[in-house]
Amino acid sequence: MKHRHLCILLTALLTSGIGWAQTPDTTSAAIEDFKPASTNQPGKEYPMVNSEGRVRAQIKAPEATRVQLDISAVKYDLVKDENGVWTGDSGPQDEGFHYYQLWIDGAAVPDPNSLYFYGASRWGSGIDVPAKDQDFYALKDVPHGQIRENYYFSKTENSMRHCFVYTPPDYDKDNTKRYPVLYLQHGGGENEYGWPNQGKTNLIMDNLIAEGKAKPFIIVMDNGTWRWPENMPRPRRGERPSGPWPPKGWADGFMNTLIDDIIPMIDANYRTLADQAHRAMAGLSMGGMQTRVITLAHPELFSYVGMFSGGSISMDDVNNAPGFKEKIKLVFISYGSRELENARRFGGDPKENTEALKAAGMNTHFYVSPQTAHEWQSWRRGLHEFAPLLFQ
Amino acid sequence: MKHRHLCILLTALLTSGIGWAQTPDTTSAAIEDFKPASTNQPGKEYPMVNSEGRVRAQIKAPEATRVQLDISAVKYDLVKDENGVWTGDSGPQDEGFHYYQLWIDGAAVPDPNSLYFYGASRWGSGIDVPAKDQDFYALKDVPHGQIRENYYFSKTENSMRHCFVYTPPDYDKDNTKRYPVLYLQHGGGENEYGWPNQGKTNLIMDNLIAEGKAKPFIIVMDNGTWRWPENMPRPRRGERPSGPWPPKGWADGFMNTLIDDIIPMIDANYRTLADQAHRAMAGLSMGGMQTRVITLAHPELFSYVGMFSGGSISMDDVNNAPGFKEKIKLVFISYGSRELENARRFGGDPKENTEALKAAGMNTHFYVSPQTAHEWQSWRRGLHEFAPLLFQ
Repeated sequence: MKHRHLCILLTALLTSGIGWAQTPDTTSAAIEDFKPASTNQPGKEYPMVNSEGRVRAQIKAPEATRVQLDISAVKYDLVKDENGVWTGDSGPQDEGFHYYQLWIDGAAVPDPNSLYFYGASRWGSGIDVPAKDQDFYALKDVPHGQIRENYYFSKTENSMRHCFVYTPPDYDKDNTKRYPVLYLQHGGGENEYGWPNQGKTNLIMDNLIAEGKAKPFIIVMDNGTWRWPENMPRPRRGERPSGPWPPKGWADGFMNTLIDDIIPMIDANYRTLADQAHRAMAGLSMGGMQTRVITLAHPELFSYVGMFSGGSISMDDVNNAPGFKEKIKLVFISYGSRELENARRFGGDPKENTEALKAAGMNTHFYVSPQTAHEWQSWRRGLHEFAPLLFQ
Repeated sequence: MKHRHLCILLTALLTSGIGWAQTPDTTSAAIEDFKPASTNQPGKEYPMVNSEGRVRAQIKAPEATRVQLDISAVKYDLVKDENGVWTGDSGPQDEGFHYYQLWIDGAAVPDPNSLYFYGASRWGSGIDVPAKDQDFYALKDVPHGQIRENYYFSKTENSMRHCFVYTPPDYDKDNTKRYPVLYLQHGGGENEYGWPNQGKTNLIMDNLIAEGKAKPFIIVMDNGTWRWPENMPRPRRGERPSGPWPPKGWADGFMNTLIDDIIPMIDANYRTLADQAHRAMAGLSMGGMQTRVITLAHPELFSYVGMFSGGSISMDDVNNAPGFKEKIKLVFISYGSRELENARRFGGDPKENTEALKAAGMNTHFYVSPQTAHEWQSWRRGLHEFAPLLFQ
């Protein structure tokens, strides 16, 4: 539980408040064009979403005295009808994916009507609000790659670990062909299921490859859950840690696992191009911060760097990382438009930092996802912008 | 919703009442050796299980007036403490996996502490009660196969479909080797996630292969959800269908999809031995009934037949299925011991039917899972007994 708490804290420093400032919109009537959400369980009508992005939840709870829909950190009261069925709407949500839950007489529970996703340190409800650009992650009749579930033994941790590996559509067609690899990390309070499930990584890649917009490559999605380093004093619960944050060495645990276990396992079991020129790392939020630390420390291992809503790389960083400027072929930084203001307060302005790298001769790309916050639609779009730039 | 209703009805005819006759055991005190269940979400203490197989659930619901644990069709009252936390125990459960849910003031919801599984026509809570023989599906440091998530276009249904494919540990080591294939089906109210998740198919196979007890083969786990045939009159809700049950033609929909879409897709995309001698079909409950219909109609396609808690094959069946007796190399029938009495009432006594086939010269195997009912521990054991007999 301490690990969870601190993971969230780590993420919160980058993102606090952004996009979470909605207040219940109870005055204006909702437009009555609600449709079942794509993230519902098979055959379930509710929750629904309308053209404003409002979520309408419904649950039967005849003996309850209070039922609420809790989404984007706002709780909306549901209203009971004569059959004991509670129904209610949220205010308009951003396009894309949101975690949510129900409160029934003080109990926080998943909505029994939704599919379940891992985020906010729990498996629970999620809902997809249709986006204007949702075609780029739609399931289409194009050649499809596979998501492979992979168990392996970690010497670093002396235990079994678990990851997902995307192989592109043509992977099993030509057994002599080898592929570049992207190591793609989730955020704090999430795990290796994030990118394949709510991230829609396979569909984004299948569609890009079918349109000829991205080269086929392997994507490894592992669990980078952050653990407090053993030799570091822990702050008490509720206390802010003293000293610099994140503390030096915070990413060492996952860095060691990645370098000593994951990369060798992938190179041994998949037809990879196992060199620096054909290896990329990217991540969202905490995963972006891990990408920053790991690629700055090991530019001899990676050529392409992607950070989605996870800080940026400054000229100071580059100057203190021997080989980084020469070896890295791309630094890609992205944010949701609604979180950008807040992001400027931590680690410098990401756009200015990225422009400074470009002025110094590095190849950079800065992308802002319109009208989204620190949430999956920003990261789906981040991957969709980043992937075509890789291994060209 | 009608489909769901009828799927359950179909299954219920084979299984009604068996193992579901427990009454709340509130008199005797539980043995206080409860431990967190292996099916809990990461870091969650509850639910717990003790050495008697009792489940102890806990949830905070300070404003609720009634909270219940609903498992094996019995509802157990939880008791509230001064902090608004409700706790309570079930009676002893069979070894193995059980679906369950919580009731909070009349609302049926998943337990926010458990992982989620698809069964009983919903994604919801499940719990694994440790079994004496659980070593055969334990995660060990042995070579592991992969579970691959596979999208494909179905001409029969004119839509995209989704399946999981287990490839054995050595599949990617030698690109010239080809493998036999088992088509393995879930039960009514379940889907293609059943065998990879609660079925632990990959771990059962990885362990058997590591011990040299089973040959490596591919396993295809697709969605066989039953649909009411279009030209057949539907009974009204709550009405028993008139005429023979299941109705003639009930399995045609999935049979066509399997033969026209799934098998050709698998043979085109995996290194299969694409002939009758190297193809098996098996299923649990409704999936066993589908296996029966499909292999009796197409003995030119399959060599091995497995039915777990899904009826049996009689000499009448064999006599009416030209080629079945000559072409089928194994008929495997299994049941949980606690459901066997009930199974005898439908389609004849499975043991007697199977012995009649053996007396007529067929190779058969009859297995009874000790002290389990119509539940996943019976089917894990069924697969564990069946797999070593295949493709020898």
